[in-house]
Amino acid sequence: MDDLNTTIRKLVAANRILAMEGVVDAFGHISVRHPDNPNRYLMSRSRSPELVDASDIMEFDMNSDPIDAKGRQPYLERFIHGAVLHARKDVHSVVHNHSYELIPFGVTQVPLRPIFHSAGRIGAHVPVWDIREKFGDTKMLVENNDHGRDLVATLGSDTVVLMRGHGCAVTAASIEDVVLTSIYLRVNARLQMDAMRMGEVTYLSAGEVALNSQLNKPKVGNARAWEYLCTRARVDA
Amino acid sequence: MDDLNTTIRKLVAANRILAMEGVVDAFGHISVRHPDNPNRYLMSRSRSPELVDASDIMEFDMNSDPIDAKGRQPYLERFIHGAVLHARKDVHSVVHNHSYELIPFGVTQVPLRPIFHSAGRIGAHVPVWDIREKFGDTKMLVENNDHGRDLVATLGSDTVVLMRGHGCAVTAASIEDVVLTSIYLRVNARLQMDAMRMGEVTYLSAGEVALNSQLNKPKVGNARAWEYLCTRARVDA
Amino acid sequence: MDDLNTTIRKLVAANRILAMEGVVDAFGHISVRHPDNPNRYLMSRSRSPELVDASDIMEFDMNSDPIDAKGRQPYLERFIHGAVLHARKDVHSVVHNHSYELIPFGVTQVPLRPIFHSAGRIGAHVPVWDIREKFGDTKMLVENNDHGRDLVATLGSDTVVLMRGHGCAVTAASIEDVVLTSIYLRVNARLQMDAMRMGEVTYLSAGEVALNSQLNKPKVGNARAWEYLCTRARVDA
Amino acid sequence: MDDLNTTIRKLVAANRILAMEGVVDAFGHISVRHPDNPNRYLMSRSRSPELVDASDIMEFDMNSDPIDAKGRQPYLERFIHGAVLHARKDVHSVVHNHSYELIPFGVTQVPLRPIFHSAGRIGAHVPVWDIREKFGDTKMLVENNDHGRDLVATLGSDTVVLMRGHGCAVTAASIEDVVLTSIYLRVNARLQMDAMRMGEVTYLSAGEVALNSQLNKPKVGNARAWEYLCTRARVDA
Repeated sequence: MDDLNTTIRKLVAANRILAMEGVVDAFGHISVRHPDNPNRYLMSRSRSPELVDASDIMEFDMNSDPIDAKGRQPYLERFIHGAVLHARKDVHSVVHNHSYELIPFGVTQVPLRPIFHSAGRIGAHVPVWDIREKFGDTKMLVENNDHGRDLVATLGSDTVVLMRGHGCAVTAASIEDVVLTSIYLRVNARLQMDAMRMGEVTYLSAGEVALNSQLNKPKVGNARAWEYLCTRARVDA
Repeated sequence: MDDLNTTIRKLVAANRILAMEGVVDAFGHISVRHPDNPNRYLMSRSRSPELVDASDIMEFDMNSDPIDAKGRQPYLERFIHGAVLHARKDVHSVVHNHSYELIPFGVTQVPLRPIFHSAGRIGAHVPVWDIREKFGDTKMLVENNDHGRDLVATLGSDTVVLMRGHGCAVTAASIEDVVLTSIYLRVNARLQMDAMRMGEVTYLSAGEVALNSQLNKPKVGNARAWEYLCTRARVDA
Repeated sequence: MDDLNTTIRKLVAANRILAMEGVVDAFGHISVRHPDNPNRYLMSRSRSPELVDASDIMEFDMNSDPIDAKGRQPYLERFIHGAVLHARKDVHSVVHNHSYELIPFGVTQVPLRPIFHSAGRIGAHVPVWDIREKFGDTKMLVENNDHGRDLVATLGSDTVVLMRGHGCAVTAASIEDVVLTSIYLRVNARLQMDAMRMGEVTYLSAGEVALNSQLNKPKVGNARAWEYLCTRARVDA
Repeated sequence: MDDLNTTIRKLVAANRILAMEGVVDAFGHISVRHPDNPNRYLMSRSRSPELVDASDIMEFDMNSDPIDAKGRQPYLERFIHGAVLHARKDVHSVVHNHSYELIPFGVTQVPLRPIFHSAGRIGAHVPVWDIREKFGDTKMLVENNDHGRDLVATLGSDTVVLMRGHGCAVTAASIEDVVLTSIYLRVNARLQMDAMRMGEVTYLSAGEVALNSQLNKPKVGNARAWEYLCTRARVDA
């Protein structure tokens, strides 16, 4: 496992990569479980991912309370991260984003499903959470732990949960994996929209999804992708 | 409230940002009410927004007559700005643009409606103005105060008005807000087109739109976005 | 009228602009009538527009024979330019391009029509030429004056002619105008495709098209656009 | 024929070009037959094409076993290249890519067909290979020579074979040709999707495809494109 310095360096790199690859714009964030304390997580202060550096990284407990804020303003929606990391011990990194291609799948009845092998890692089932079902009219933001726990209940044991009219939360066992899953989730949404207009679609079978899940991806492929993404985002690998 | 120097600096930055984010191309413009005189407004001379600097900023009265042109050529369609700022005391900044994604909504019967929370700020109702209804065949440009007043009548108390076969006018209480609304208006149009092809769409409820209107947006979110947009456009925040 | 040096400088700039704006890729070309001899025209040797400089500019007669090739290889499809400039005395600059958005209109029965005022300049009627009608199976290229004259017969007195499964020819009275028309032709095609999927479309009326034709466009607008396009393409205005 | 040094230089350039033109992202690869030994081929070690340089180029035999790996990790899917180059003596260069526009054609019943002359080079018939037909649930990767031979059986004597839910393999007589075919294959897919939504499509006739096949393309056009592509990718031509 990465030590704290390496974890922070990768977390900063991941912020820049998510911006470079169009997963996030001014908004969206990524967290990682603290390498030395599974009940803590690391995430930037409230800043656009493209601009994040190491001095922006804050530490939070599982209630998403900052440990030592030093005057820094946390993200309003940090409760997404705390709630997921608390409930899912297998998850070590979480991305919240508003990727444009995902929005249509959150506001219609069309299930998002893996259409090509690179997106097998999103999992066979992508649930949609609607904050309005339990909380009525809101700003549609995950502003507290009640919101966060309700989101996690919909996520269940899946990898990705869409948020109606808002975006998604993506989970993975590592920073590298959560970045790749976020990127191919977006690509899959675009391709599925295109393919559906052309007729009946052959999706990945359950067996193909299982074999292409994050746990089964060839490690060398991930390392190759990480080198590529760091180069494009001009950060150290 | 910002002083005159800060206002001009932000207005120049907003011009560059609107170009960088694809809201404007060679055409389109942004104005702001004069901070010291509510019956005046500031706007660039006739120049593409990507190229505007402080020396291009001119002052206009509510008839859109320049105060001291110093030989500079004003935008032909400046009457949009004067007419809106005269009629709407709550508005302090106006963008006119031809964002490509908006055009289809102006030339069909499909109402543009907020589909995700970032676009709640465009408001629940986006009217469409057709210059032909009152003025017959024209160059389709807002070339005088009669055109401007007719546009404003259709805008009413809404935030955005589409112009059939032309573009839109976007209003807000500040430069930062009018920039963000212009950006997410465009994104919303693209996402709504995509989602409508997939089946019935769940739009934001009236309550969600109200809670996500410009007045209720978290200030910290706007500051984060402004820092991001200025960095991308390579202007001072 | 521009002198020869200015004409060549603008022609080089136009080549770079068309590449920067995505009108051309490796292929496509632009010509201009010789300012001192209406029976001659200027065009680059066979080179991608993004790479053209003044030393690449060759002179041709109305048969598209080079005057003094100096070993330079002309474009294979130069006959498009000679044929148009010979037949249409009102035309002074011609662009041939393969803009991707235009292809669907050349291979279906959907007429391309101006959908927003910036594209009024393409004209109310955009004919489609199919080389196969007269010449049967070919490489689909305008490889001689017979091909060129047949294309011109379909163009007639219009501004733009689509070429089935190939691209288009765009005509104008000046380099600046032919560049702007080429850009907005492409944008119009994309927007018309989007709008048509949303229901019945309100196109510009005949009167609006006439008022927005190239001859009636405000000169100041063209100058503004040219400054913008030159800046983006990093060439002198 | 190019010598070994020239071949390696072009192979590196082609890697960079395919990345620049969006044909590949972190994944995808290009091979070329060894100029001095038709039973060998050259390809990068497992690295993203955008980052490949001459020291990454490895040599393989027709079983896709590396000749002298020097500790370098080969691509997992190198069997695509060995199998094609072994079976098709007319092919000298192969690209495997995941171009997003191609995916919808692999997962629906819509045949990909040339819609404009630049894409005539993809050939009149583009077969689709589904690894599941013979091998059941897999990672969907060509991980051995059995997979490779099955892919080649579907390719037959065609130029391109789509891989269901995965990508494609593109073949050509030279590096320059395989790059151009890969680029226009992608463009054709996008344009065909657009055109099909507009009504009945006129595709290239069999005769037009034959006249626009790779063997018949004007050499000067290819040289012009290669100069353009190298300039954009910032590599030596």
